[in-house]
Amino acid sequence: MAWLRNLSKFSTIKAPQRPKNTDPFFLLPSFSFLSHFSSNVPTEEKSSGLEPTKPHEKPRVVVLGSGWAGCRVMKDLDPDIYDIVCVSPRNHMVFTPLLASTCVGTLEFRSVAEPIGRIQPALSRLPGSYFFLANCTAIDAHKHRVDCVTVTEGSETIDPWKFTISYDKLVIALGSQPSTFGIQGVKEHAIFLREVHHAQEIRRKLLLNLMLSDVPGIAEEEKQRLLHCVVVGGGPTGVEFSGELSDFIMKDVRQRYVHVKDYIRVTLIEANEILSSFDDRLRHYATNQLTKSGVRLVRGIVKDVKPKKIVLNDGTEVPYGLLVWSTGVGPSPIIQSLDLPKAPGGRIGVDEWLRVPSVPDVFSIGDCCGFVESTGRPTLPALAQVAERQGKYLAVLLNNIGKAGAGHANSEKEVEFGDPFVYKHLGSMATIGRYKALVDLRQSKGEKGLALAGVLSFFIWRSAYITRVISWRNRFYVFVNWITTLVFGRDISRL
Amino acid sequence: MAWLRNLSKFSTIKAPQRPKNTDPFFLLPSFSFLSHFSSNVPTEEKSSGLEPTKPHEKPRVVVLGSGWAGCRVMKDLDPDIYDIVCVSPRNHMVFTPLLASTCVGTLEFRSVAEPIGRIQPALSRLPGSYFFLANCTAIDAHKHRVDCVTVTEGSETIDPWKFTISYDKLVIALGSQPSTFGIQGVKEHAIFLREVHHAQEIRRKLLLNLMLSDVPGIAEEEKQRLLHCVVVGGGPTGVEFSGELSDFIMKDVRQRYVHVKDYIRVTLIEANEILSSFDDRLRHYATNQLTKSGVRLVRGIVKDVKPKKIVLNDGTEVPYGLLVWSTGVGPSPIIQSLDLPKAPGGRIGVDEWLRVPSVPDVFSIGDCCGFVESTGRPTLPALAQVAERQGKYLAVLLNNIGKAGAGHANSEKEVEFGDPFVYKHLGSMATIGRYKALVDLRQSKGEKGLALAGVLSFFIWRSAYITRVISWRNRFYVFVNWITTLVFGRDISRL
Repeated sequence: MAWLRNLSKFSTIKAPQRPKNTDPFFLLPSFSFLSHFSSNVPTEEKSSGLEPTKPHEKPRVVVLGSGWAGCRVMKDLDPDIYDIVCVSPRNHMVFTPLLASTCVGTLEFRSVAEPIGRIQPALSRLPGSYFFLANCTAIDAHKHRVDCVTVTEGSETIDPWKFTISYDKLVIALGSQPSTFGIQGVKEHAIFLREVHHAQEIRRKLLLNLMLSDVPGIAEEEKQRLLHCVVVGGGPTGVEFSGELSDFIMKDVRQRYVHVKDYIRVTLIEANEILSSFDDRLRHYATNQLTKSGVRLVRGIVKDVKPKKIVLNDGTEVPYGLLVWSTGVGPSPIIQSLDLPKAPGGRIGVDEWLRVPSVPDVFSIGDCCGFVESTGRPTLPALAQVAERQGKYLAVLLNNIGKAGAGHANSEKEVEFGDPFVYKHLGSMATIGRYKALVDLRQSKGEKGLALAGVLSFFIWRSAYITRVISWRNRFYVFVNWITTLVFGRDISRL
Repeated sequence: MAWLRNLSKFSTIKAPQRPKNTDPFFLLPSFSFLSHFSSNVPTEEKSSGLEPTKPHEKPRVVVLGSGWAGCRVMKDLDPDIYDIVCVSPRNHMVFTPLLASTCVGTLEFRSVAEPIGRIQPALSRLPGSYFFLANCTAIDAHKHRVDCVTVTEGSETIDPWKFTISYDKLVIALGSQPSTFGIQGVKEHAIFLREVHHAQEIRRKLLLNLMLSDVPGIAEEEKQRLLHCVVVGGGPTGVEFSGELSDFIMKDVRQRYVHVKDYIRVTLIEANEILSSFDDRLRHYATNQLTKSGVRLVRGIVKDVKPKKIVLNDGTEVPYGLLVWSTGVGPSPIIQSLDLPKAPGGRIGVDEWLRVPSVPDVFSIGDCCGFVESTGRPTLPALAQVAERQGKYLAVLLNNIGKAGAGHANSEKEVEFGDPFVYKHLGSMATIGRYKALVDLRQSKGEKGLALAGVLSFFIWRSAYITRVISWRNRFYVFVNWITTLVFGRDISRL
């Protein structure tokens, strides 16, 4: 091993000898390497980018988005057939089912984020494949190109940069955005739970409120407000977050925030039923378990969100210190703005092969797409497993198209597309805290199948997720996080 | 085991039966638990806080700060003798020697942060001990009390809250702040490397620049600017960060940012010698190793810092994409503003027992203190090991005072203080990248002792640190981080 040959040098120094002429600096003659620098930044709005591919070059697949759908299609695309270009404002995929666990420190943030360069190494290694940290601003399906602008997040040292990418095949996997139902104040005061930065914000706020409520002289009712965590939306995300929060309160807050432990409460507000897609018995079990864990379930409709309280339809005012909003998703503005065929509900319309009809070489997968009415198929739910399955299907389809020599733009007319996409629901899972979970393996609400609840389900849930966390690195980290949480408790440092 | 008894329930559902009258919600009658809430927040500036302790109560030690000095004294204080109150704007201690490693993903941020509640569990568990997330704004040594204001970081839902804490013994361990030497633009454009949020900012900026420079159409010289990492200051922090950065470039950037790998450069600017406290031979070794790793060492004095370039004294302009400033520390404004005896250099003056002379019951440790001139002792360097040793000494002293029944304010006149504090330097260590480190075990520059450099030193350095990372949890995590970095490479997701 090379480093063994290079083992350290020992020296016993007898007197401080300053050797002559040993300037420890490598003084560069007149900064030669710096001379070709210049601080002139191009500020004019010239548009540059990736030109259309030539017939002898590999065709280029452009994937917009880096969620479940986009990452799955990129993972399975064959980089020997296509150059792959991804455009997304984040350079990692979020393993969303485990995101709720990061808010209270059960898992680390990094354990649920998978860098895209690990999902598809070609993006960072092959000359024609790229990942661009940018947003797509427009699609010109006629010219086969997309307009993008870089994400700089207020960094002053670089101006947003516009560029254009020509595609042979385009995959729109831009996802959805949280629904606010037009309720005032949601965007300003509530925190969603879809990205790692949301989980970070929830965690920081929760720990801040725990510490602030401990300060001498804070009024009783202000303490109660600060430590009242309100979750709006009783779907799997809202329920899992409530369960994690009650676990955190029962196991960690009671031990480590002794002075304020009796003030903290969790309220889950839902307009209809919690976990409405689950079997009735499971739902009943979940309701009992959550109530036992101290989560207050309230049926209500939110009318207005103010900085320190929400107002329900019946006029009740609910003061809160932390408000998490998880009431489902709808199409994002970019999807609405695209001049493409639409499906019911405002999603991008696709046919049975996930192609956008009448627009050549454009495909759409994940939460942002739905079947056009002419297919007679229902809109699929906005679930990770739908997106992932669509990505997998589309990668096979695109690889086949490429192998058939129809990878370049406007060349796929002769290709046999094979079987259309069929979604088969594998069931739903949700944790409810205290090492308990629900597993509903029925294909739909009205059908037969296995449905179970309790500790065994919890282990099924953990095993299912740990094998799906994509890289071995993250599998290992999630496992280590779970073990350390069990042994040492949750981490409470507020970074 | 209780949870085994509670094993999951199986049920095979034959038909979707909706049981009658099973509202899955626990509908609360008229929100009874919410009724005693009110959204009126006290906004008047009334001052409240912790009153002076009574003679029959435990005396109260108030520790200002949660760095090496403050945390060490809290760790060793006996909670059976004293109530311990800590006031600090962060709820964790930063293990500063490993902070540079977190910027490039070798270690996770959380692995180098130790929650104060773990260092001294009494703070979160005993009724009279507290941690307050607040800044100290004034000290009234005559009335034995400190004024504080809560840290809310722009959170709109709570106003900053002022309160007062009466102390029996006060330990001022407020640390120092980075020196900027009055150079314009340092605070605005450079990033320091002293807190976890600094490391997070460096990491985010480094990854942003790596991705932005890959965007099509960015001019060559702008790419070079974006990927030019400049470190100002050649002390251990600056050198370790440069070493980590060159490791990251050589091992990870070359593999995962293939398109831009030839543009990234590291320049270390120092006015004098790098690692000036180390043995000459070690310094020479470090210089060679850094240069081999591609770090450019430049001797120069920074005159001005602009958003995209720095200007040196000789007029040379150095464009940068990332600027890290690590040129030593000086007293912070709160230390300067205190009406207490001072040591040379503006630090709080202390005597041989770390007491502030002529001010009863006030002690100071760490970077913020120095010996008053009358002691004839030199100012100790602003090092973690000085701070930690002082904290340890002071805890023993305070425990002895408490055991002698002189824990309360103004009652220690009769107590024998014992041996004064003596600092014995245990040596210095620094990594320089590529699994190499320097270990200088001489007590001072002019003395005899062991000094070694190379791979063996690197393992000594790692072993020394892993046994000093305070909790078993963090030891375990640092170990796991090092192993995974070795096996899987550094994490590059930008969260």
